[in-house]
Amino acid sequence: MKVGILGAGQLGRMLAAAALQMGLDPWLYDPDPAACGHRAGQSWAYDYSDTEQLESFARQVDLCTFEFENVPVEAVQIVSRHTLVSPGMAALAVSQDRLHEKNFFRALGIATPKFHPWEGNETQGIVKTRRLGYDGKGQWDLDRASPQTEAECIWEEKVPFQREFSQIGVRSRTGELAYYPLVETLQREGILCEALAPAREVDPNLEQQAREWVGSILEALDYVGVLALELFEVEGRLLANEMAPRVHNSGHWTDRGCRTSQFENHWRALLGWPLGSTQATGCVRLINLLGSVPEVAPPGATYYGKEPRPGRKVGHITLVGESPEAVDQQALGVFSDAT
Amino acid sequence: MKVGILGAGQLGRMLAAAALQMGLDPWLYDPDPAACGHRAGQSWAYDYSDTEQLESFARQVDLCTFEFENVPVEAVQIVSRHTLVSPGMAALAVSQDRLHEKNFFRALGIATPKFHPWEGNETQGIVKTRRLGYDGKGQWDLDRASPQTEAECIWEEKVPFQREFSQIGVRSRTGELAYYPLVETLQREGILCEALAPAREVDPNLEQQAREWVGSILEALDYVGVLALELFEVEGRLLANEMAPRVHNSGHWTDRGCRTSQFENHWRALLGWPLGSTQATGCVRLINLLGSVPEVAPPGATYYGKEPRPGRKVGHITLVGESPEAVDQQALGVFSDAT
Repeated sequence: MKVGILGAGQLGRMLAAAALQMGLDPWLYDPDPAACGHRAGQSWAYDYSDTEQLESFARQVDLCTFEFENVPVEAVQIVSRHTLVSPGMAALAVSQDRLHEKNFFRALGIATPKFHPWEGNETQGIVKTRRLGYDGKGQWDLDRASPQTEAECIWEEKVPFQREFSQIGVRSRTGELAYYPLVETLQREGILCEALAPAREVDPNLEQQAREWVGSILEALDYVGVLALELFEVEGRLLANEMAPRVHNSGHWTDRGCRTSQFENHWRALLGWPLGSTQATGCVRLINLLGSVPEVAPPGATYYGKEPRPGRKVGHITLVGESPEAVDQQALGVFSDAT
Repeated sequence: MKVGILGAGQLGRMLAAAALQMGLDPWLYDPDPAACGHRAGQSWAYDYSDTEQLESFARQVDLCTFEFENVPVEAVQIVSRHTLVSPGMAALAVSQDRLHEKNFFRALGIATPKFHPWEGNETQGIVKTRRLGYDGKGQWDLDRASPQTEAECIWEEKVPFQREFSQIGVRSRTGELAYYPLVETLQREGILCEALAPAREVDPNLEQQAREWVGSILEALDYVGVLALELFEVEGRLLANEMAPRVHNSGHWTDRGCRTSQFENHWRALLGWPLGSTQATGCVRLINLLGSVPEVAPPGATYYGKEPRPGRKVGHITLVGESPEAVDQQALGVFSDAT
């Protein structure tokens, strides 16, 4: 069976690798011929505005997904006319606009930091472009900077959070639901640096809350596939930050540290196949490799085959141990080798 | 770094997939353009007797391995003149001839069933061709059949074993050694059908014995890479059956059921990189898919992308559970779905 992926970055590459292992035939569409995912399947390197190529691609594949919510809506619409695209347009429309997304959360009763459309008169808080921001781009902390953009923005309260979490859920075409363990994420300048899975010392009520929120999002959107919800922990409460309608960096540990990876379960969901177990196989610490990779890959390293460039996500290391202490000890070894 | 693989069957394919994940660039040489591994890397589909192509391939790669001990020695010799091939010629020479192999075991003090060169006058026992047998081919039980071959053969005592085991070990270029848990293998007509890992209810002295034997083989051959030793359990003792100087079907469970797969550790050994943990992440049951694969891949299924054909190894399922009972319960589900 041929399965399509719009976008051939590392997420597309890992989706393709999982597809190959499952006996599927992955096709990747990405305008950049150097995109690292192209080498993991049948490569289609054409512009997203090339209707003819998009249509030809869409007619070849039995179903299609995307690795990134900022793939142009028009391209997804064209593909959708010829094959089934999951997650669908509803999820894309919500997640491409931060204001729509926050309003959607509010409508579902999911708590968020305070927010409203940015009108230029606030002096504190965070201003974010409504569209096309990722990895901390298109964001300004009003205490430190003025927004440098003509684009429409959203203002958000700056919350003094204790920790950041990510809850990944998956919903199958059949309606089957599964949740990965709650993950603590450590970010620097808006970029995920590390993740701890399962998150440590978390109030079970918060975990339950996170699952219920993700479940309500999945149901409301009649969602098919993997979805990640990023959360703040503020004084024992959760606030939703943003969602990603796709496989997510905070779930990369599932490839080596979980019974079934997020990539495999994404395909299983799209195909309506029974979902695999989301159980962690130990205490896991995911370390993102930014900028460059060690020449000698540490055990548990996954490299994306991307050219090194400052700050770029070029790989990750998944450490798995019997206890948080054991995995932290392994991490010390990785960091000392890296220096 | 470019790494070469002679042979592009499922073992080559899984080696290539592991290489890609580690940031290596796999090149596969196999005369059959339809071989399933070709799609997992740079494909070279030329005959093993094509010296020019072999040399060209060898000059391109930084190091090389093989997926199968019956790759022609002459081809390995040609490649060896231009790049480092591991495991080396010593391991190949020993394992391509059953009589040499058994004599080698004897010289290391490794117990085996009784054996001697077949001279045609035995009426009981097993006769095997000395060369080119695999998956039960080229073998005759004298109780049931007469050898149908002009080839040189070895006679072996037929041992009334209770169980069959496989011990996989890995030795790095640096001399570092690691052992996977002992595995019980279930065979039908010489073909591996299932494997239980770690093997259940095994006398720790036998496990120790299996490791020591593998260690002595690895050291004696100055071996680099993964090696499997197949064993019989006979009345509380071990007897060595045969070795495979490569990644092995009895280790396929390590891809999903172990901290580090045999495929990754094979490359780590060849590159002299620190070996990854060989710890199982639970109780594992590997089920080979022979002939054809279920259309809906069960969780834990790995498909090789091969054309279905009766008896052919076309995939496997790795079930991982908290206990032997839990994993056996999962297996019941797989078998009932398959019927």
